[in-house]
Amino acid sequence: VVEAYGQLVAEGYLLARRGSGTRVAERLGPAPRRLETASASLPTPRWDLFAGHGDLTLFPRTAWLRATREVLAELPAARLGYGWPGGAFELREALSERLARARGAATSPEHIVIVSGFLHGLEVLARVLLARGATRIAVEEPGFPLCTAVLRAAGLQTVAVPVDAEGLCVERLEATAVDAVVVTPAHAFPVGVVLTPERRAALLRWAEEHRTLIVEDDYDGEFRYDRGPVGTLQGVSPERVVLAGSVSKTLAPAVRIGWLALPEELVAPAIGARSIGADTAAVGQLALARLIGSGAYDRHLRCCRLRYKRKREALLTAIADHVPGARVHGVAAGLHVVLELPHGAGEVATTRAAAALGLRVYPLALFCAGEPRHAPSLVIGYAGCGEGALRDAIGVLAEAIDRAHADAASDVPALAPRDHAPASSWEGAPASLWAG
Amino acid sequence: VVEAYGQLVAEGYLLARRGSGTRVAERLGPAPRRLETASASLPTPRWDLFAGHGDLTLFPRTAWLRATREVLAELPAARLGYGWPGGAFELREALSERLARARGAATSPEHIVIVSGFLHGLEVLARVLLARGATRIAVEEPGFPLCTAVLRAAGLQTVAVPVDAEGLCVERLEATAVDAVVVTPAHAFPVGVVLTPERRAALLRWAEEHRTLIVEDDYDGEFRYDRGPVGTLQGVSPERVVLAGSVSKTLAPAVRIGWLALPEELVAPAIGARSIGADTAAVGQLALARLIGSGAYDRHLRCCRLRYKRKREALLTAIADHVPGARVHGVAAGLHVVLELPHGAGEVATTRAAAALGLRVYPLALFCAGEPRHAPSLVIGYAGCGEGALRDAIGVLAEAIDRAHADAASDVPALAPRDHAPASSWEGAPASLWAG
Repeated sequence: VVEAYGQLVAEGYLLARRGSGTRVAERLGPAPRRLETASASLPTPRWDLFAGHGDLTLFPRTAWLRATREVLAELPAARLGYGWPGGAFELREALSERLARARGAATSPEHIVIVSGFLHGLEVLARVLLARGATRIAVEEPGFPLCTAVLRAAGLQTVAVPVDAEGLCVERLEATAVDAVVVTPAHAFPVGVVLTPERRAALLRWAEEHRTLIVEDDYDGEFRYDRGPVGTLQGVSPERVVLAGSVSKTLAPAVRIGWLALPEELVAPAIGARSIGADTAAVGQLALARLIGSGAYDRHLRCCRLRYKRKREALLTAIADHVPGARVHGVAAGLHVVLELPHGAGEVATTRAAAALGLRVYPLALFCAGEPRHAPSLVIGYAGCGEGALRDAIGVLAEAIDRAHADAASDVPALAPRDHAPASSWEGAPASLWAG
Repeated sequence: VVEAYGQLVAEGYLLARRGSGTRVAERLGPAPRRLETASASLPTPRWDLFAGHGDLTLFPRTAWLRATREVLAELPAARLGYGWPGGAFELREALSERLARARGAATSPEHIVIVSGFLHGLEVLARVLLARGATRIAVEEPGFPLCTAVLRAAGLQTVAVPVDAEGLCVERLEATAVDAVVVTPAHAFPVGVVLTPERRAALLRWAEEHRTLIVEDDYDGEFRYDRGPVGTLQGVSPERVVLAGSVSKTLAPAVRIGWLALPEELVAPAIGARSIGADTAAVGQLALARLIGSGAYDRHLRCCRLRYKRKREALLTAIADHVPGARVHGVAAGLHVVLELPHGAGEVATTRAAAALGLRVYPLALFCAGEPRHAPSLVIGYAGCGEGALRDAIGVLAEAIDRAHADAASDVPALAPRDHAPASSWEGAPASLWAG
């Protein structure tokens, strides 16, 4: 299951190489080739409702180039050497100001460590936890499979704790005897609920009482469409919460910049637990610092919020029109919804039928570490498609659901969960799922 | 010892913030602050003969910006997603062509994995070796302390094998029962000798007979001033040698791009052993691919070779003039020499006396994992200073040596070697060494 998801991420640029049926006219040099894997022969889908990133066509290329030019014009030569492994001060300063303003965080440049993305930060944290004697860490179920994979590969045991309509079932943490928990309070991934105020308070109480650590995965906290963003837990309890974020959803995964806002005593261990030299290039860090400092980053986010809000509305309208029996779960936030299939349609059968029609969708079972207990559902990412393409895709999905009803028998077993190390997460995906 | 070196690297941009006494006029935002460490209070030296990188003022900013602009203008949006974790195809293709042409390597884009620098690549290789059952790896003595630190932190035992006038003592490998060796055949670091043809052949024979792996650290193989560069071992035996390189010496450490050219069966394991998401930004990878493809990288290297050759000559002249009793070791290559001190001058005493005069130098003992057995020597990096500054610095060194003679008793014990994990390599340097 996790392998499948890893494969999707690994293939991000391949899967989406065509924009909803439109060929990309220009190429940068020859097309990227890749090593043979199980799914190398998968057809490129006409529509791909991947939830892993935003609309990559919105990347602010002009602003990024301008910031790069300014950095290169002004950077003292000595700054082109080996930088401070915790990250450039200017970026940590810009982030600390912005996280306070936009996310209600309580941090400082000295408490922030720059990493190459959320999962890289999580690996660093796992090493820090292990060095402090931790052995077990709780994760959300359903959740983010690569999160579980990274933690296990680092040597931690993961304990899946259910997420219900109020978010993570905090009362279940008591029985787990874990040393830490990874949680998505602002918008649970993938089920899309918000951790209720009561649960937030209970979670912080639990961490305080047991001297445990909360890792707050703020993956899409910038995107809320019906109200202001939910503030971070970290701002309430900076000594018990690590706030982990990145620009993978706000700018693009290819930027490879993320951050950890840490309690004081974890800063030096986190810097030490990084791989030596696995830093992000200084020019990129400083360009991002400029983008934030100049307000261009906030302007870009306002533009994104408007676009994604409209895309979400287009998606909901298309679902109401084409799949009236389906239910949509999750608050008006982020880059995806969970679509509960009409009665009788199986996840895997629908996914396969959709693949045969040129549409790639993702069963909710892919996001479950244990035996799936949910009603058959799909995780639908809507940020990467245009509004017209979204309507077309949902029309095709309706047809796939009809076809799947006729073949519901073949459901579920293909997705039996299994253990996994990320060393092989790019290999051996259940290609049959999308083989069409 | 290793901690000290780590600290130097960590502080690279701080140590060299002033160019040989000249203040940097422009600043990018506020000066970088840093967390308190043992050596945070060290005075900034007037001259710093650090051997860890080239002349950072030569970084081709205009060409880099142009390449970045071209990449941003042409890159399909989908390439801003999660890329292939082994690195952008265009860069692997450009490197494979160039490594064949300039370094005699025998590889292909499919055999290259992009990493964030040599030490990051070494950590990846250590994980691959461990997963294949390896336990012990040989390193050069004297050698690169952070190389040892990374291998140990990954869980391998390191075995220090001496380097003599003919390079690594290959016959000593037989007795070590190691599974692999890290070696610098073109220009042994730091002692500066070239592995002789007989030793090269013996090393390859050893690897073939014992089915072991040679990790070829090609850190400064591009810089040879008296003849063409020594070709790589990898080109002779691509199935037994991993060629590891980076642009840290040729462009700048801040670029954070390196590579592994691997035997076929190690490619997939190496990709799997990377931290998920700890990639270099795609735009940077593609900018480097353009720089190589356009010939700008080769032009830059020709310019660097000319400058460094002149700096080396200026250094040797200054040493002959000011420190006539000293002997210089190492072929005409790279970015540093080993300076054997005149009779009676101790490494540590000289280093301390120099620090008091505003000159930072590096005792050879810093590069020894075991008990130092060499004549008292300094590793002198000459690439980062201008020719005039080099002459001034060597004049100051002569004075420091005179002062050190009077105080040779305080030598050596301060540098007793000890075990180390890179988690703390940025902390606890023996600041007293350079406290002046």
